[in-house]
Amino acid sequence: MNEVFDSYRKVQSLVASNGYGVTIQKPLLETLLAATGFLAQAKQVELISRVAGKSYFVFSVGDSVSRPVNRALYLDDSAAVQKVIIALFERRLSGLDASQINRAVYSSAITFCAGVDIITKKRDQKTPGTFFEYLCATLLTALLGHTPETSMPVLNLDFETKLPTDLIFDLGPGQAKYHVPVKTSTRERVIQVWAHQRVLDGVYGTGRFLGMPVILTETKLASKTREVTEICLPKQWLLYQMHIAQLWRIAFLDLPEAYAKLKDGFPKVPVCTLGDVIMNGELPIEAV
Amino acid sequence: MNEVFDSYRKVQSLVASNGYGVTIQKPLLETLLAATGFLAQAKQVELISRVAGKSYFVFSVGDSVSRPVNRALYLDDSAAVQKVIIALFERRLSGLDASQINRAVYSSAITFCAGVDIITKKRDQKTPGTFFEYLCATLLTALLGHTPETSMPVLNLDFETKLPTDLIFDLGPGQAKYHVPVKTSTRERVIQVWAHQRVLDGVYGTGRFLGMPVILTETKLASKTREVTEICLPKQWLLYQMHIAQLWRIAFLDLPEAYAKLKDGFPKVPVCTLGDVIMNGELPIEAV
Repeated sequence: MNEVFDSYRKVQSLVASNGYGVTIQKPLLETLLAATGFLAQAKQVELISRVAGKSYFVFSVGDSVSRPVNRALYLDDSAAVQKVIIALFERRLSGLDASQINRAVYSSAITFCAGVDIITKKRDQKTPGTFFEYLCATLLTALLGHTPETSMPVLNLDFETKLPTDLIFDLGPGQAKYHVPVKTSTRERVIQVWAHQRVLDGVYGTGRFLGMPVILTETKLASKTREVTEICLPKQWLLYQMHIAQLWRIAFLDLPEAYAKLKDGFPKVPVCTLGDVIMNGELPIEAV
Repeated sequence: MNEVFDSYRKVQSLVASNGYGVTIQKPLLETLLAATGFLAQAKQVELISRVAGKSYFVFSVGDSVSRPVNRALYLDDSAAVQKVIIALFERRLSGLDASQINRAVYSSAITFCAGVDIITKKRDQKTPGTFFEYLCATLLTALLGHTPETSMPVLNLDFETKLPTDLIFDLGPGQAKYHVPVKTSTRERVIQVWAHQRVLDGVYGTGRFLGMPVILTETKLASKTREVTEICLPKQWLLYQMHIAQLWRIAFLDLPEAYAKLKDGFPKVPVCTLGDVIMNGELPIEAV
């Protein structure tokens, strides 16, 4: 049981000392294996899905249950999951498709989150969120060939300060800089993502930072009725995109239909999956 | 012990049915008396203050302690506190000064928050926050003579929707509309306040909504060392005020020096106390 946390803490201390480079890849995979091992003893219990076209279950051990897991996205084969994750670490994209990537990254994230949900009986929201950030940061570091910063210097005529930010992948002078907030879900807090983008646009100039939040899911479980819903506010996202700042891509793993539609409307909010953005040639990935 | 919550729930159901008008005033005062009665059995334990010029204590019952209470702002005389609150309810401002108002409102809020902290052993952050919003909303409803809305209609060429907002006091056509987020403390979440202001500016036009967050305190208690600090990010507030939107006033009860200074700098962030903004003639209060 503690193996999951022991393994996680090793990742945590490596991130603190070395950032998101190759040294963290193996410990990250080991943490996933520990979580997979922990969940092997868990039952899978079907939920009542109020989300059209999607079915969900929870992992359950004793009286402790996990967050909802999307049945179609969850790949119950850790070797297959790790194979895709390792291919991404090594930028071997040929032979992969967007859907495989989404399933592998989703399964990795939800396996760890579900394990922690059960071990801590849902009280810990921070550890799953931090792990998901580690996972996405490590993947994007490998794919983009640059490690992220988490603060940017601000020289502002009168004062100099460091602006704390989400992950910033700076590909160098004259190249794109990606602003990547990583969230397990957003709810009403999502306005922060647009607000941070606005500050970056204001301080450094519009268009210099491409905002690409990565979001795991928007599911909500009503524990009494065992019903799963998605909490989505698409009209508010439209207002944020029109009035606060323009995000470049919003990349989901478990993409809600209510948000998926936004990419086809006008004004457009460019919602997609992480697999899409990796495979459709928009990110400057030097695939091998 | 449950009297505090019983009384609070009565306020809550009255707000749900009647909003913030006069009918809520008496139940609100009764809730404060219940919290005062509950705290009468508590010890006051001094804390180590790392905040220059301020001293703090906690209320303590058994092994349960409250959040920090500012010694100079806390008026240990519930009759005196209620006298000021009732004067505000009745718009009798002559004879009051800003400092009296700050002490009475701070004491009311912190009495309830401290009571709930002890009863629930710190797990409940929502009830204190909601009560503080009820208190400020009821005071401002009485002072401004208008009840607040918590959403605004948006008609936006292509779609119509309701934008959920913090308290909006709309004084009518051709008059000011006050956008009042109420927070017991802000930390990193404060960027939301500027972002909501930006959406209001964008949707309705800049200058139509005057943003005035009301904030109780920015203290943080390290429970092991019993040290109190203030978490302040004044340089980030400057960036938000320059790049996201312009707040009209930021009204504190326990005002941190790091933020108080911002009103004298350039660019200016108009930080003050709630007592100041009530007494200095900036709000259109028809005092009797």
